Amino acid sequence: MHIQLVLKTLGLVLLFEAAAMVPSLFISLFCQESDATPFITGMAAAGAVGFGLYLVPIKNKNVGYREGFAIATFSWLLLALFGAIPFTVAGAVPSYIDAVFETMSGFTTTGASVIPNVEILPKSILFWRSLTHWLGGMGIIVLTLALIPSLNIAGMQLFKAEVPGPTKNKVLPRIAQTSRQLYKVYVIITLAQILALKLAGLSWFDSLIHTFGSVATGGFSNYNASVGHFQSITVEAIIIFFMILSGMNFALHYNWMRGDCKPLWQDYETRLFLIIIALSTAVISLNLFLTADSSPGKAIRDAAFTVSSIITTTGFATVDFEQWPSFSKFVLLLLMFVGGCAGSTGGGLKVGRLFILMKTFSRQLMRLIHPKAVIPVRVGRDVVTQEVVESAHTFFTLYMLLFALGTAILTGLGLDLISAASATAANLGNVGPGLGLVGPMSNYSSLPDLGKVVLTFLMLVGRLEIYTVLLVFSVKFWR
Amino acid sequence: MHIQLVLKTLGLVLLFEAAAMVPSLFISLFCQESDATPFITGMAAAGAVGFGLYLVPIKNKNVGYREGFAIATFSWLLLALFGAIPFTVAGAVPSYIDAVFETMSGFTTTGASVIPNVEILPKSILFWRSLTHWLGGMGIIVLTLALIPSLNIAGMQLFKAEVPGPTKNKVLPRIAQTSRQLYKVYVIITLAQILALKLAGLSWFDSLIHTFGSVATGGFSNYNASVGHFQSITVEAIIIFFMILSGMNFALHYNWMRGDCKPLWQDYETRLFLIIIALSTAVISLNLFLTADSSPGKAIRDAAFTVSSIITTTGFATVDFEQWPSFSKFVLLLLMFVGGCAGSTGGGLKVGRLFILMKTFSRQLMRLIHPKAVIPVRVGRDVVTQEVVESAHTFFTLYMLLFALGTAILTGLGLDLISAASATAANLGNVGPGLGLVGPMSNYSSLPDLGKVVLTFLMLVGRLEIYTVLLVFSVKFWR
Repeated sequence: MHIQLVLKTLGLVLLFEAAAMVPSLFISLFCQESDATPFITGMAAAGAVGFGLYLVPIKNKNVGYREGFAIATFSWLLLALFGAIPFTVAGAVPSYIDAVFETMSGFTTTGASVIPNVEILPKSILFWRSLTHWLGGMGIIVLTLALIPSLNIAGMQLFKAEVPGPTKNKVLPRIAQTSRQLYKVYVIITLAQILALKLAGLSWFDSLIHTFGSVATGGFSNYNASVGHFQSITVEAIIIFFMILSGMNFALHYNWMRGDCKPLWQDYETRLFLIIIALSTAVISLNLFLTADSSPGKAIRDAAFTVSSIITTTGFATVDFEQWPSFSKFVLLLLMFVGGCAGSTGGGLKVGRLFILMKTFSRQLMRLIHPKAVIPVRVGRDVVTQEVVESAHTFFTLYMLLFALGTAILTGLGLDLISAASATAANLGNVGPGLGLVGPMSNYSSLPDLGKVVLTFLMLVGRLEIYTVLLVFSVKFWR
Repeated sequence: MHIQLVLKTLGLVLLFEAAAMVPSLFISLFCQESDATPFITGMAAAGAVGFGLYLVPIKNKNVGYREGFAIATFSWLLLALFGAIPFTVAGAVPSYIDAVFETMSGFTTTGASVIPNVEILPKSILFWRSLTHWLGGMGIIVLTLALIPSLNIAGMQLFKAEVPGPTKNKVLPRIAQTSRQLYKVYVIITLAQILALKLAGLSWFDSLIHTFGSVATGGFSNYNASVGHFQSITVEAIIIFFMILSGMNFALHYNWMRGDCKPLWQDYETRLFLIIIALSTAVISLNLFLTADSSPGKAIRDAAFTVSSIITTTGFATVDFEQWPSFSKFVLLLLMFVGGCAGSTGGGLKVGRLFILMKTFSRQLMRLIHPKAVIPVRVGRDVVTQEVVESAHTFFTLYMLLFALGTAILTGLGLDLISAASATAANLGNVGPGLGLVGPMSNYSSLPDLGKVVLTFLMLVGRLEIYTVLLVFSVKFWR
């Protein structure tokens, strides 16, 4: 392990975080909020430690597999630990453990909150809270690589560790170039949504906050009633559109922005993603219409928004779906596991992985009748390699194991079964709100500290897609 | 597909079922119960249809893969459909759908019941209800093969379809011989438990009923309070011992009965099975002691019995674990998924399969650091073939998919989340009681008919380990 290189890169990431606090500092200085202490403290801490680490001398610039995984894991941990400082200093989240939970929830685009009343918070804090979403959405190390290509840390390993999805073959071979292109797409979509929300009547600040929440599939809002605050079908439609867009593969968005729509229409993962959204919306609408006395229009509107919000792992809410009938709630719980597409900003298992798993079913059944046949797993015309199939299977099994462990710990801390299971699913999948105690109109403040620490860890594990973090925390890794 | 052969074998199975009703008929005639109509009707129906099918002329006696899977699936369906007749005719279970549920629950050794008060039923009905457990436990087609080797249907396919577990290499190569040996072990263990319970003070009838429930890991009792009725620590200890014994691989029992204990002590699956039981008992005892005001002795006793009952998928109860704290309930829910060992009479995912899945985790992590390394999955000194690994993975994924589908349907029928999820897990895993509405001191009678049909199907799917039934119900199978 090339420790010096890891430390130096971590320093760079912290310096970047200090710089990312500048806009919030400005807001605190100029928006009738005189107290700049929270961000000055945060920048000083991140800057000082970051600069110290950056001075570590390195021998060469080659990042191996181990270094890549270590950098990814510890970068995200440090980002949360230092990003939490402004929340605690400002008194917005007095407990530091709570503040780390909130910050990790921001960077991992989970959107789970421990703040009971966000409407009393200063704008600078709200901005920082939502900016962490935007920075974490496309991957913050990828962003660092995109901005500082001169560092020349060959980042394939970092890219692999941070960008979600079972197959990464849709990106271009040159990482720094790819990173810049993905970020270009991300910025364009972000600007488009800010403008759309502004035109729909929102203030610039509200537009910005809810755009960060949508394009990063994060879910932090500056209103206690989340998107429900606006009571506007136009705003909901815009947010639905951008949440779904952000739940798709950004490499495919890059293609159509350059005029080539074919890859998007022909992509099996995108199709399945849209089919799942349509079907889930249909069955939940029907369930709401039949059992909850909703008008058909209201049922479809509520179902469409909630389904899009949950499957993309955003977590915005317009209604208290905790009050929905149990069938609708269970469908939402399943969607928390599904998640977005590979290469999106969404979390969960990823639609592409589930597609591969489904494809292995019929292979397995055919093998029973034709035991000696060699049956490849195909997605469209492409044969999925055996390694990708195995990786998808193991990922699914590990995901379920983590879900079971998380739920066991939370029930052990006294939570009821549904709150515990949904909180675990919602944090491991980077969704945000769960059911029961942690429903969309509630928050995570009532959980015991140990529960918050476990969920903070699960957010990180989910965001970096399990393997990276587990590997770094395994004994064999360090031998 | 050699349809004639399938039909002829199904006829044989039905004739066997008619013969299996003889003891119940005798009980109804001689135990102060004059009404023999239920069993005469059942025997006449099964006998007539069975004889008709048995007359189907066949060309040759070779059972191929397809025929084997079709025979297994339809045998079990017919057994439940005809075995239900006595329940309905006797008025014990007036609705035929309910009676089929009860009978399928019996044959698949699930032990889920729709009868609110079993203590008012005639002994003949109670005997038949529990006998279905015993017949289904070791596999009824295997039994048919063991009894009628002259039929010479080379039964490897049937054996594969019916005997549980990921690897079947621990049995002897000659199927008819193996079947007889497994049944010999089964009978010895059965006789031993009947004797033990009788010596502990139970009546012969109670001993018989609770032995059928234990050695088949079924769980039907002739008392509403299940094993809790006896209020005897000796009886509970005996039943714990035999439930655990029946949750182990019977091929290993055959070995130690012949004097060779080594295979049992060295078997990784057996070890893991016992470790899971010990750990689960420990954490649940602690949870009960700390939160539910149990004395340490009572906590350990209740935990040990319930853990053994649930992991072996028996389903006997001594306490109403629905009243336990949520952590203990969640551990029980997880144990419903674990199940017994391969080659046991237990259901669930099977410990051996989970062991293989766990082994693939570290392989996957090592691959990230050494992408080109070929890393075999080992259990002890043996290398697990790639096919077994893939089969275990696909099995796990399909099991979860069926769990999700079953729960979705039950919530759609109006059940709450916990009742729906636990009912699905308990029936797919052939456990019996669940949580909530279908807890151990309750029953399945309140479920809507469609829910009962779905659960009946899941019992069958779980008992025949998914692939067999799904294959037979797939389009490709019949082309």
